[in-house]
This record gives sequence, structure tokens and C-alpha cells, in this order.
Amino acid sequence: MSTLADRRDRLRDRVRAAGLDAALVTRLVNVRYLTGFTGSNGALLLPVDPDRPDVLCTDGRYTTQAGAQAPDLELLIDRASAPALAALVATAGVRRLGYESHDVTVDLAAVLAERAEGAELVSVRQAVEAMRAVKDNDEVALLREACTIADRALAELLAAGGVRAGRTEREVGRDLDSLMLAGGADAPSFETIVAAGPNSAIPHHRPTMRVLERGDLVKLDFGATYRGYHSDMTRTLVLGEPSAWQREVYELVRTAQAAGRAALIPGVDVRAVDAAAREVIAAAGHADAFTHGLGHGVGLEIHEAPAIGPQSAGTLVDWMAVTVEPGVYLPGRGGVRIEDTLVVRDGAEPELLTTTTKDLIVL
Amino acid sequence: MSTLADRRDRLRDRVRAAGLDAALVTRLVNVRYLTGFTGSNGALLLPVDPDRPDVLCTDGRYTTQAGAQAPDLELLIDRASAPALAALVATAGVRRLGYESHDVTVDLAAVLAERAEGAELVSVRQAVEAMRAVKDNDEVALLREACTIADRALAELLAAGGVRAGRTEREVGRDLDSLMLAGGADAPSFETIVAAGPNSAIPHHRPTMRVLERGDLVKLDFGATYRGYHSDMTRTLVLGEPSAWQREVYELVRTAQAAGRAALIPGVDVRAVDAAAREVIAAAGHADAFTHGLGHGVGLEIHEAPAIGPQSAGTLVDWMAVTVEPGVYLPGRGGVRIEDTLVVRDGAEPELLTTTTKDLIVL
Repeated sequence: MSTLADRRDRLRDRVRAAGLDAALVTRLVNVRYLTGFTGSNGALLLPVDPDRPDVLCTDGRYTTQAGAQAPDLELLIDRASAPALAALVATAGVRRLGYESHDVTVDLAAVLAERAEGAELVSVRQAVEAMRAVKDNDEVALLREACTIADRALAELLAAGGVRAGRTEREVGRDLDSLMLAGGADAPSFETIVAAGPNSAIPHHRPTMRVLERGDLVKLDFGATYRGYHSDMTRTLVLGEPSAWQREVYELVRTAQAAGRAALIPGVDVRAVDAAAREVIAAAGHADAFTHGLGHGVGLEIHEAPAIGPQSAGTLVDWMAVTVEPGVYLPGRGGVRIEDTLVVRDGAEPELLTTTTKDLIVL
Repeated sequence: MSTLADRRDRLRDRVRAAGLDAALVTRLVNVRYLTGFTGSNGALLLPVDPDRPDVLCTDGRYTTQAGAQAPDLELLIDRASAPALAALVATAGVRRLGYESHDVTVDLAAVLAERAEGAELVSVRQAVEAMRAVKDNDEVALLREACTIADRALAELLAAGGVRAGRTEREVGRDLDSLMLAGGADAPSFETIVAAGPNSAIPHHRPTMRVLERGDLVKLDFGATYRGYHSDMTRTLVLGEPSAWQREVYELVRTAQAAGRAALIPGVDVRAVDAAAREVIAAAGHADAFTHGLGHGVGLEIHEAPAIGPQSAGTLVDWMAVTVEPGVYLPGRGGVRIEDTLVVRDGAEPELLTTTTKDLIVL
């Protein structure tokens, strides 16, 4: 059985267990996860009854593509994909129809209820997102490739002297993006962050025309998308001999990041993972300078379940793919963040997918 | 009064006229239109009562940015921006709260209703999108710049011999993107389409490793984003001396496109605009080869109101910005699309923002 069919059957089991007759999946990234279809319009109807086919609906632009990407599904062509699938429900004996209430708008829900006639709409909550948090072999292979593309792009950028005084943040960012694309990325995972000098103290900084200067910390947060899967990595470099405070903050963040990685063990509460890194930073008196959560799941979305922060809920599971990215930000001076993408493994160290050195790179 | 405050007051008038006490704007692009705020999390509460301030809510990442971009608004910092604003409503004497039911999910609506306590949630429909369809001076200036960047990028690509036999669709697309970025674009407006030979018959084609060959029609559909505003342009070129059928189809589409542009007159039904171009193509026996609508509004989104197609509804209004993009697609052989971005003008020709020649370019 294909991976995709297996995913659909696992969702079907959950839907059946919830007392529903079918599920209507509308969130596009979830449709992709369950069918392989990558178009920009689509929905999936998944009946519990094994005698009824799973139906993928999309519009006429994607007829050929949907047939090629999801050959084992019944295909329905209709621009209003979710309503068209809801209309099938009335004749399929579906009384309780699961739907994604975190994705469906109020307006769309009204249309679905009307089209599904007598069927009751019942939320399946984030059932597919919960499945997606735990990766399978195929997914880890794609994440590994996405991370390798990003690692290679950074190595090439550094080898070419691309990070040096006199260049702008924006030039460095464009070079990184170009190298990832040339290296096989479909696209950058998100808008590449290049933050130099005082800008490195801004956790999410968009590259500007600021020129890199000797003495700057330079924070690079970037990733590649490969066949839908996202990598995410941050390295912070220094231009010229680092000052004492720069070394100190760097070593602190490196130690905290190692503690966070060491805490990636199946069964551990995500808050404990966050705390493992956060306590290192707090003990050094910089608790207030670490202003965000420790990490997040990564896969078909750059941010997905599980969240790993002080207020997050849940425990780690074998084969979750997550980032670990503590930071210390000193406004007006600069900041350091170090981030890896890793896969949680039972009875073993987590697999490190982003392999660029975490020794301080001095340029 | 600033343009932004004027926009908010016009929405306030609509909200008041609908018998509502306040509007909660959650759709991010609408928040940007009304406040200037460009962060990735934000919502706006707009009370009808002139003694109460408009409130922008975003999270801590954007405190500085929101203050700088929207200095005349009261700022609330809360990660759950829409619920936090809904919670203000209870103490503000709001009984009927307008909200965007085409944007708010079923889950979020439940949270809003709970936070807003006694207030009734009433849809404002797409009130802000309707306002956005008609541009002001500032917006047209930004669209003009976005279009100029795209025009220039294509001119530079052609001058450098970038479109030639032996290169892949993907290489050509990357060059166009790089030239737009170097020319001041924030980003491409959408994934640039480069479709050569038989691929040009696919209306929405993603660039592949296919190599451009002598005799190919090469369809380039691309645009630049400049300070949030999108340009959209298609040109179809030919590599080497065009064959008779290529010339014929090109001239047909060019004539149809001119007819569509000539029909851009305030007060005209959008279906009549579509028909003006479509009838030219139908009269030549190619009705079935023009498989999409004639055009769409363009601005902060690449596709926005008004839609201009055979099933669209509404009439053109002075200062709407729209595309006109007929195409004729002959499966297996090739296709031609010619597209401009224009501004509808009362008592004058529409302003053409994309000024690249529509004479057949033979390379």
C-alpha cells in the first residue's frame, strides 16, 4: 500500500472512531499530505464506508495534474471544490460529516451545510495536522534533502566570500536564495533573514540596505523548500575578531541550543524541552533576552505541530521533525540565534538534518 | 486627512449605514489597506462612535513596526489579535459587531462570540474588498511603479539575449525574477510563468527544465510587487521566423485584447467587457480555445475585485485597476496570451501601466 493510501486509511480510522460517516478535508496542505496533489485549489472527501471511493475535487486547470499526482482517487472537476464534495454527501448516506472548522470560514460552512442537506457538520479539529507532526520515511528523506540544500548554499556563500563588510543585508539574502535555487530548492522556505550589527537583535528582521561592517554579528535564518518540505536553520557569524561580549553570548546560546537538542526524547513534555534550553540562558542572567519559544515542528509547513515553548502543550513522539532555536537579543547591540532542524528518535540521539558547524564562524 | 484615515472613515460610514456599532477587520490585506501596517499578524477594531479610537492589535514582534506604520492608531499588543479586540467590545457598548465572515473560520467565530460577550456578530461581507477595487492616487502611483519594474526587467532580459534557443524555461524565469528584484521589486507578484513550445498552450504553466527551441512560441506571464502592489503582464514571443498559424493566432489575440481594452469604460457591465474580446476570438472559430476569464482587478492582491469573465457580475468604476488578458491555446501546438494592467478612467482611454510593445517580438 502506498504511503498516501496509508495516510488516508489512518485518518479514516480516526474519523470512524469519532462516530462520523465521512470527512471533508479542505485545508490545502492537508489535501496534499493525504493525496499528493499540489494544485492551488482542491478538497478531499474521505468516506468511512470502504465501498465508496475517496474523491478529490479541483478545477479544470488541474485535471491532468490531479490525475497524474493522485491516480488512485476518483476525480471530480468543479471550481467550488468543497461545496461540490459536500453535494455528494447527500446521496452517499452520510449523516455526520467531519470538516476542518479551523480552516472553513463562516461563509463556506453555511454553503457546505446547505449542499450537504441533511448531514450534520462536525469538526474533526486538527486531526490531519496531528498526523502530520509525526513524519514517515519518505518525509524525512525530503526534509533531509531540503536541509542539505540549505547547508550547501551557506557553504558556497562563505567559500565565495559572500558575507563580508561592504555588502548589504539584501545582497547577502539574495545570494543565499539564488544558491538554494541553483542547488535544487523549489523556493526559499520563507523570506530569508539577514540581520547585521544591531539588527541582529531583532528576532525577525527583513533584510535592508544596511551595509555589513567589521565587528558585526550577522544572523542568517533561512531554509529551502524541496518537493513541499521545508528546512529551517539559523547561524550567527561575526565579521572580524569577536569582542568579549560577542563570544560570551555566542557560547551561551550554543550551550543552550545543545541542551535543547539533548532534551529531544520521545515522551518528554515540550515545555520541558523549552525549559532545558531556557534555564541555561536564565542562569546567565539573560532570561528576558530570549523572547520567543524554543522551536516548532517543520514539514509541509515551515511552522507546524508541535510547538515547543513555555506555554505549549503535548509530548514529543518518535519521528517528529522539529527545530531547536534559542536566541539572546541585546537591543542596540546585537543578538545570536542558533537553529537546527532535527528528527526525534526513540532510543537514539535526534537526527541532525542541518549539519553546518555550530562553532563560531569568524570572517 | 491622510489617505489611510480617509479609507477608515469611508468604511466607518458603511458600517454605520448597516446599523452596526463597530467593525472587526481580520483579513490581513484589508488591515494593511486601512492602516498601512504590513506585519503578518494583525486585526483592526473600527468603532462607529467618533469618541472611541480605532485600535490595531498585533503581537510583540511588531510593536515598533506597528507604531511606525500606523502612528495615529491606538495599539494593542496581543498574539491573539482578533479575540483581543473582540474582548474590548463588551466594555465599549457595542451591540452589533461587524466582522468578515469570508475570512473568519468557524473556530475563530466561536472565540470572537465568546469574547465579545453580549454583542451580536454580523457579517460586513466583502465591504473592504469592494472599496479596494477602486484605487486612489497613491495606489495608482505604486501600481505604475510595479508595472514599470516589470517592463524594464523584460527589456533588459531581451537586450541581454536571455530568451534564446538552448536555455531552459526555468533559467529564463529566474533571470526575469532577478532583474525585477535588482530593479526594485520587493518580490515577483506570483510564480513567473515561462512556457515554451507546446507548453505555451497550458494557461498556467510552471517553468520546467524544457529547453527553448527555434520555432517555439514563448509565453512570459510575470509581474513585480512594489510596496505591496502587484503588476501583471503577459507577452508571447516567437523564436525564429513565425509560421503562418503562429502569426494568425498572435494577431487574433492582439485584436481581441485591443477590443477588451477599448471596452474598459466606467459603467460598463464586466460581462460586456469580457464579451468584447471573446467575440473576436469566437468569430475566428477559436471560442473553445479561450478557456478563462478576460481579466481581474489587481492591487494589494494579484487577483482581487472586479472579476471580468463571462459569469462575473458588476460594472466598471472610474479608477478601477484591472488586467485584460485574452488567450488562445491550441493543445499540443502552442498558445498566445497578451495581458496588460490598466486603470479605468472616466471620459478618457484607460491608463496603460504595462507599456511593453504588443507587436510580435521575433527573436
